[in-house]
Amino acid sequence: MLELKFDPKKGIWAEEPDTLEKLRKNYFGTEKNGKIYLDIEEALFLINFQNARCKSPDGKDLGFNQLASRFVGKEPRLFIKYNAYRDWRDRGLVVRRLEKIKARKTKALKRYPMRVIRPEGLEADAVWYPKSLFSVLQSKTLGKQLFEEYWIGQFGIYKQDRGSLLKLDFFETVFLAEHFGLKIINGETGEELKAKNILSQVIREREYARQLYDIYEDWRLRGYVVKTGFKFGSHFRIYFPGASPAKEGKYVHSKHVLHVFPKEQKLLISEWARAVRVAHGVKKTFILGTGKLKKKEYVDYPTDFVAYRRKKTKQGWVRETPEDKPRYLLVPIAEDEHIGGVELASLLKKAHEMGLELLLSITDRETAITYYVLKQIVLPGSKYEYYEIEWMKP
Amino acid sequence: MLELKFDPKKGIWAEEPDTLEKLRKNYFGTEKNGKIYLDIEEALFLINFQNARCKSPDGKDLGFNQLASRFVGKEPRLFIKYNAYRDWRDRGLVVRRLEKIKARKTKALKRYPMRVIRPEGLEADAVWYPKSLFSVLQSKTLGKQLFEEYWIGQFGIYKQDRGSLLKLDFFETVFLAEHFGLKIINGETGEELKAKNILSQVIREREYARQLYDIYEDWRLRGYVVKTGFKFGSHFRIYFPGASPAKEGKYVHSKHVLHVFPKEQKLLISEWARAVRVAHGVKKTFILGTGKLKKKEYVDYPTDFVAYRRKKTKQGWVRETPEDKPRYLLVPIAEDEHIGGVELASLLKKAHEMGLELLLSITDRETAITYYVLKQIVLPGSKYEYYEIEWMKP
Repeated sequence: MLELKFDPKKGIWAEEPDTLEKLRKNYFGTEKNGKIYLDIEEALFLINFQNARCKSPDGKDLGFNQLASRFVGKEPRLFIKYNAYRDWRDRGLVVRRLEKIKARKTKALKRYPMRVIRPEGLEADAVWYPKSLFSVLQSKTLGKQLFEEYWIGQFGIYKQDRGSLLKLDFFETVFLAEHFGLKIINGETGEELKAKNILSQVIREREYARQLYDIYEDWRLRGYVVKTGFKFGSHFRIYFPGASPAKEGKYVHSKHVLHVFPKEQKLLISEWARAVRVAHGVKKTFILGTGKLKKKEYVDYPTDFVAYRRKKTKQGWVRETPEDKPRYLLVPIAEDEHIGGVELASLLKKAHEMGLELLLSITDRETAITYYVLKQIVLPGSKYEYYEIEWMKP
Repeated sequence: MLELKFDPKKGIWAEEPDTLEKLRKNYFGTEKNGKIYLDIEEALFLINFQNARCKSPDGKDLGFNQLASRFVGKEPRLFIKYNAYRDWRDRGLVVRRLEKIKARKTKALKRYPMRVIRPEGLEADAVWYPKSLFSVLQSKTLGKQLFEEYWIGQFGIYKQDRGSLLKLDFFETVFLAEHFGLKIINGETGEELKAKNILSQVIREREYARQLYDIYEDWRLRGYVVKTGFKFGSHFRIYFPGASPAKEGKYVHSKHVLHVFPKEQKLLISEWARAVRVAHGVKKTFILGTGKLKKKEYVDYPTDFVAYRRKKTKQGWVRETPEDKPRYLLVPIAEDEHIGGVELASLLKKAHEMGLELLLSITDRETAITYYVLKQIVLPGSKYEYYEIEWMKP
């Protein structure tokens, strides 16, 4: 049995030789003057799962609630933090408070390819249906060409070779008007419309249309094909430069979905996880895009833990310890909490500077944990921030 | 070839004998004085896919855009409506404007079972961690009993037989305090808390917590097990009365997820579809719950079409026609549009009164259509509205 002591002035510690040895072997606590001092989540874990007993100065046994109550004033989100700690430890892996490690060298970011597109001056016009937010191009030759070369619009029926109209959604309509010189006629009034007028109209009627268009344009100008991600629960699906809707008669499949998270938006963790979940269910990489932050916009979001995983040795897979490089900046959060674009970007920056990957540990209402790893990626020359999010099992 | 005529004063019609015969056979338009008059979506469909030509009074051919432009002033969401019409027709099925059918007998609603629960006066207290929004019950006997009899809380570790604390989320904490007389102690101050104080605190910190709790309580009081739906992208997952977490050592699987859509909330169609999509991906029935509307709260949401499907005859499956009973009230909508709880409830009421099922036809930015059928269900004695939503392939 592990023996712990608690004193309001000194904290939680162990001094009994057997206990000290067991704690040392499993990297619990911090050694000082022959004692090991424990953080509250460490003590709660030991009480709950390692049969530890914790005594108060008057010799009374302190249970989970009695000990936790002494700390909850200073550690407001204690239960969420404890639960994140508990799950990681419970897998036989090591996790420590952040203050206890030193910063490491930063890692290189993953770079995505790009291809410069060469827009043409299009000698044609499309009719814009203002309330439907679609436009229709009637020229069969040009429609087929735009569709096959750029995979812009929908030529005929989706995945069928019938029909000859090119239907353009509002992003495509604005993009072709802005960068390809396509003439757009208002179907209601017969007047010609400028790209920026169409975009202004869409912005008035559709939430975050400006932020979505900016990111649509960002990828399109780098040669990516960007189509609706509706079937995959995201704003867009993307194909790498060079993709075409029907190469050699076979339909290509996208491997990435792209979701826009405006930095001013706050999203429920559960809503955010839902989008990642759909992408994961259809085996696509989920990319989140957000505006680049100004220096003063970054915030200091509380980060509690660094986590170690496993490494391969001659003896097989063994757990990593504080003698190895830590892997993750582990951030505990609950399913019903909100997170904003600014907070996520700030966390990513912090993890990057420490040479760590960002790991979100999400506690659901049943105390089960879901992990997501966030990796920053670079789209050459872009002024937006993008990161891949992957579901992870430790 | 089909021959159509257009005159701004008279509309679109056919009068050439071959054309009349073909239109009649496929239930296009309305016959009057030996002519068949067409709605704009019918004419656009015939031009685009049936090789029809439409002539203006001066003998000019009118293409898709030329004809659509004449109508877009009166029919603002013309393209979205046309696309919904197009997809249904394209499957060889019949769809007509709403004004052209008569109301039918209403159908009975699907009833869910219920079992009255018998709450006990619990002689124990749990500690509430205010910033974490969890409480912990330390009594092992009582914890195990609540978990196994009511499947309330999480006893030990999720799906493992270890640990002996009962962790209660905020819905469970409030519910046990309100209906089972469980005593709740504030972990920060040591004071006893009333159910309504805990709920008020949660409402301040969590979006729509009141609406979620009301619906949680509604199902719990009828004997259902209601747990987090986080892993399935919804607010809750539910089990029918009598379910237990570990019957004969086997874990039961929920078959329904329950999502709360407050009537005052407006949701993007794409967000709404995402939640249904996750549920469908894990083979669960998706139930949407919303507050009951007062009579004056119902709105007249535009409904355009009634749709027919197929029936089995001695000759096999054949399409239904206006001589059969229509099946669906078909509502065209685009992925980037918003829909509110009030609009959905109003549409359901209208469909129910006409004896039809409600069918949402969602046009994505690529003009592909996804169909969802909505069926109202009844939870005995409940003052909320619930409906099942299913993905459908016509």
